[in-house]
Amino acid sequence: MIKIKHKSTINEDLGFGKNPTQNNQRLLNKDGSSNIKRKGLPFFKPHEAYNSLIFMSWTRFWITISISYIGINIFFAFIYYSLGMEHLNGSVSTEPFKKFLDAFFFSAQTIATVGYGHLSPNGFLTNIVAAFESFLGLLTFALATGLLYGRFSRPNAKIIYSENILVAPYLEGKAYMFRFANLRSNQLIELHVEVLLSINVGEGEKATRRFVPLKLERNTINLLTLSWTVVHPLDEESILYNLSAKELIDGDAEFIIMLKAFDDAFSQTVHSRNSYKANEVVFDAKFEKIINTDKDGIAEIDLAKISDYQVI
Amino acid sequence: MIKIKHKSTINEDLGFGKNPTQNNQRLLNKDGSSNIKRKGLPFFKPHEAYNSLIFMSWTRFWITISISYIGINIFFAFIYYSLGMEHLNGSVSTEPFKKFLDAFFFSAQTIATVGYGHLSPNGFLTNIVAAFESFLGLLTFALATGLLYGRFSRPNAKIIYSENILVAPYLEGKAYMFRFANLRSNQLIELHVEVLLSINVGEGEKATRRFVPLKLERNTINLLTLSWTVVHPLDEESILYNLSAKELIDGDAEFIIMLKAFDDAFSQTVHSRNSYKANEVVFDAKFEKIINTDKDGIAEIDLAKISDYQVI
Amino acid sequence: MIKIKHKSTINEDLGFGKNPTQNNQRLLNKDGSSNIKRKGLPFFKPHEAYNSLIFMSWTRFWITISISYIGINIFFAFIYYSLGMEHLNGSVSTEPFKKFLDAFFFSAQTIATVGYGHLSPNGFLTNIVAAFESFLGLLTFALATGLLYGRFSRPNAKIIYSENILVAPYLEGKAYMFRFANLRSNQLIELHVEVLLSINVGEGEKATRRFVPLKLERNTINLLTLSWTVVHPLDEESILYNLSAKELIDGDAEFIIMLKAFDDAFSQTVHSRNSYKANEVVFDAKFEKIINTDKDGIAEIDLAKISDYQVI
Amino acid sequence: MIKIKHKSTINEDLGFGKNPTQNNQRLLNKDGSSNIKRKGLPFFKPHEAYNSLIFMSWTRFWITISISYIGINIFFAFIYYSLGMEHLNGSVSTEPFKKFLDAFFFSAQTIATVGYGHLSPNGFLTNIVAAFESFLGLLTFALATGLLYGRFSRPNAKIIYSENILVAPYLEGKAYMFRFANLRSNQLIELHVEVLLSINVGEGEKATRRFVPLKLERNTINLLTLSWTVVHPLDEESILYNLSAKELIDGDAEFIIMLKAFDDAFSQTVHSRNSYKANEVVFDAKFEKIINTDKDGIAEIDLAKISDYQVI
Repeated sequence: MIKIKHKSTINEDLGFGKNPTQNNQRLLNKDGSSNIKRKGLPFFKPHEAYNSLIFMSWTRFWITISISYIGINIFFAFIYYSLGMEHLNGSVSTEPFKKFLDAFFFSAQTIATVGYGHLSPNGFLTNIVAAFESFLGLLTFALATGLLYGRFSRPNAKIIYSENILVAPYLEGKAYMFRFANLRSNQLIELHVEVLLSINVGEGEKATRRFVPLKLERNTINLLTLSWTVVHPLDEESILYNLSAKELIDGDAEFIIMLKAFDDAFSQTVHSRNSYKANEVVFDAKFEKIINTDKDGIAEIDLAKISDYQVI
Repeated sequence: MIKIKHKSTINEDLGFGKNPTQNNQRLLNKDGSSNIKRKGLPFFKPHEAYNSLIFMSWTRFWITISISYIGINIFFAFIYYSLGMEHLNGSVSTEPFKKFLDAFFFSAQTIATVGYGHLSPNGFLTNIVAAFESFLGLLTFALATGLLYGRFSRPNAKIIYSENILVAPYLEGKAYMFRFANLRSNQLIELHVEVLLSINVGEGEKATRRFVPLKLERNTINLLTLSWTVVHPLDEESILYNLSAKELIDGDAEFIIMLKAFDDAFSQTVHSRNSYKANEVVFDAKFEKIINTDKDGIAEIDLAKISDYQVI
Repeated sequence: MIKIKHKSTINEDLGFGKNPTQNNQRLLNKDGSSNIKRKGLPFFKPHEAYNSLIFMSWTRFWITISISYIGINIFFAFIYYSLGMEHLNGSVSTEPFKKFLDAFFFSAQTIATVGYGHLSPNGFLTNIVAAFESFLGLLTFALATGLLYGRFSRPNAKIIYSENILVAPYLEGKAYMFRFANLRSNQLIELHVEVLLSINVGEGEKATRRFVPLKLERNTINLLTLSWTVVHPLDEESILYNLSAKELIDGDAEFIIMLKAFDDAFSQTVHSRNSYKANEVVFDAKFEKIINTDKDGIAEIDLAKISDYQVI
Repeated sequence: MIKIKHKSTINEDLGFGKNPTQNNQRLLNKDGSSNIKRKGLPFFKPHEAYNSLIFMSWTRFWITISISYIGINIFFAFIYYSLGMEHLNGSVSTEPFKKFLDAFFFSAQTIATVGYGHLSPNGFLTNIVAAFESFLGLLTFALATGLLYGRFSRPNAKIIYSENILVAPYLEGKAYMFRFANLRSNQLIELHVEVLLSINVGEGEKATRRFVPLKLERNTINLLTLSWTVVHPLDEESILYNLSAKELIDGDAEFIIMLKAFDDAFSQTVHSRNSYKANEVVFDAKFEKIINTDKDGIAEIDLAKISDYQVI
């Protein structure tokens, strides 16, 4: 059981509410998303369309738009076919399926505005449908490509965090430490980090979940060019002072990391979140050095070693 | 009649001016827009074009651009027709209306840059017009699709608020409470909320409208993953202390909610506004619980119950 | 000659430097741009291209891109013509000028990717040039339309200011006042205004230009739904206390207005600047009322009266 | 050897870490990028694609997309050729290479959606490939043009700094000074500058690198219309007080400049960084005047003279 010593520090609310009572649930996933289920949403969610198209995986994205493209063409092919193939100049096929294929290819040439012309519409209705299809094609292709570019150019921080949070020697005492670096080569400036400890306090029925902000050696740096080791010194004021690994696990502790920075390439503020559960804490270890100077004397950082540590 | 007790708290100006004297007028609509008429504007408002095209309903948007598309094509069809149908290779129609249709379809194939070629221009003027139309077509289609994407990708908060503001038990006393949640699945971070009470003070000729900021239990949370219940405790310092439902209605009270957050998906600040009128206040009730754990022990929020309360 | 009373308030630097000595020059134009000439710039300014294309007038913009379009087509027509018209299938003209026109129209159909096909390339070089032109066409049209959309969707505040700054009655004394409103129907929130007085202090050789921030009744409002009358009360602490119209003109006074707000429609911060010269100050006048209630009791603002005042 | 006098001022971390020990290495390049090598990155870096395409030189950008365009067309030409040239209507070439060229030009006309139609697909496979190619073409061209526009419209400050930092007369004493101006004609507002001195303190094995923020006469200006001379007065509190040129060079001093401003044209925050090494410090010199009034009495700034100084 953990005694909170400084009541004044426990009034920070991370938006998870005050008593998510279930143990061993990670509040924040490693990718920074929250681990909460949502229900009661309307079945049809137009306001989610953009979000989901922007955030789905590339594989799903390509499958989605390819299927849409084929589907729309089949739909229009069916219309052209129904209106009569005699209204498609240049279609000389005689079998029904081949006729349908002609209609399908005419649709594809129309929606992408290629319009070779070896197939061309005649008659009022076929012409109207073709005109509408090219109109629609321009708009939907623009939407698809807008999404494509939106996905490609989305400002997001690619931060790699060390896999563990260490309890390492620090000055005369010890400190909790983790480190991170920017995987992208662009500049992150005006970085600000906050660390909260989420931990169950009390036992059984009376257990409540508390969110305690941890005091850091420093909260901000101007420019992230190398890696940044974030340090929470273990002094008497710290809630973690003298807390054992077992107590962390019993309290179902989770360290929640919230990072904010300005991305110089995109001229926008970016955020990154991460969390460490109690079993990701390594006691009495220290990080390996990742900054060296190469043979020309230039400082060099080895990002592959970001998680490397040695037990001491 | 209401006595304002703390003069120092009433100098907040919401931009509605100091004496909108008319009773029962909602200052802020439920969608966050203001309920004020504007006149004296210039008749032709080019600076509004973008705004109105972005904010009109989807139905109106599609009607607007479809009619524009048809209108432009009729306009160009008329020009081609006037220049002489002998300048359109491939047009073999003989009736005037069918000729006009040929010109219309040629225009549609040109403006969307399909250019099948079974219809093609000859002669100086028809060629020039066709070249100009394809030039114009590319630019206007790009504008239309830009608008389409702009509408689709516009960062806006989709917040659902409880329908009522409750006077509920809170610690040893009572408090005004409402709650809200994020309808979108994206993350809202660094939320900041302000609540102002707009109320008529004094009577008859001397009545003036005051805007009083209400002191909240907390104004900010870091992350909105569940719902947030905003709480104004009813202590002696509150202007609402001991104010009855009738006094609220007599004073034509309106609670104005202003919410600001950072949208992690769009990397932009979003705002949401809402208001509660006196008749939307429910005394002596409390909100139903909307957070549960499912059978796997995962926290779960039921957004359909956001407005549910029980009278006590 | 003006005596500055409160030295502590004069250390605000607006970026105009400390002694722009020339009298009667307006530092800030009415549209918010600065009235300073710049020379020594490199002749070729690629970094200005975007800016100037975004900020030039619509007339100039359309002329610029139309001329570019015609110019590029003439350029390519010349190449096709030089390569030999026998390489353009479908060109049956015999006169040189008509041949050139065929080449021109072929170019236009290629660059806009219409490609009717009644004119089509044959031979290696003509094909290569046509392939290159369509490639270039897609890219440059996209740039042009990007600019078009960028111009159309640029977030900018359309603020109308009163034409004059008044010295009007205020509480028991007087105050400098001007007012402004939002010409657009979108919401401006979190408005912040600063007013600086730029005035020559001392005489002849010793004259220096000072920038004095004026203390306002309020600097911020939450929401601009009606108009906002900005008020600088004339108390003993004000540098303008007891200053006559003649002294203002002798000191070549200029009131510099800097307004900042968050535009809810564009989710971006917008700025507006304005200035009033000494001859735009009207003493002993007050603004006409512009807010009324219509017959249904709805508050209504008449933006056409924003500058109306009555002498008292 | 340098003695740091005010320990309280040395706890600023620029993100370069505390002991990059190698002398004579510039931490910050003149273009604001950091001079650190990074290794251990994954070989395939999709998250870098956008960044590198946006930040590469225009020459490299054009070469990259031109080669991609040619490469894709060769790839598709090969497919069409393999599927049999009898499936390309209109191809009458007999030699293999000329046949391949026909396939190449057909591909180019398809991917750019020109589709003249003198070459057109027949047969199932060729039609399918052509439909896919036009689909792909629309998407990749949109991506390329999005990048083109992204490069063109990227908000970035074009600041020209004086080449040297001077030790110039200031009031009764001396001060370090450099100046800069905006090369673009757009308005920069709300400028904020910070200057840090990076210097080796101590000798040999014990040398550590310190980052000392320098106190400036002013850190912010409202509007950059002329140039801004940033001034660090040399008073007794300054770490640079009485420090000689030799000591600067021995300590491998570097002045790191970090500038932040709001760009009114782009409605976005922009940043600029610069650095001066010890050998770019000029003692006992002052900047030439760059602001004059022209014959009409209008203030005028000569940006070509931004680095000009005279020794005194």
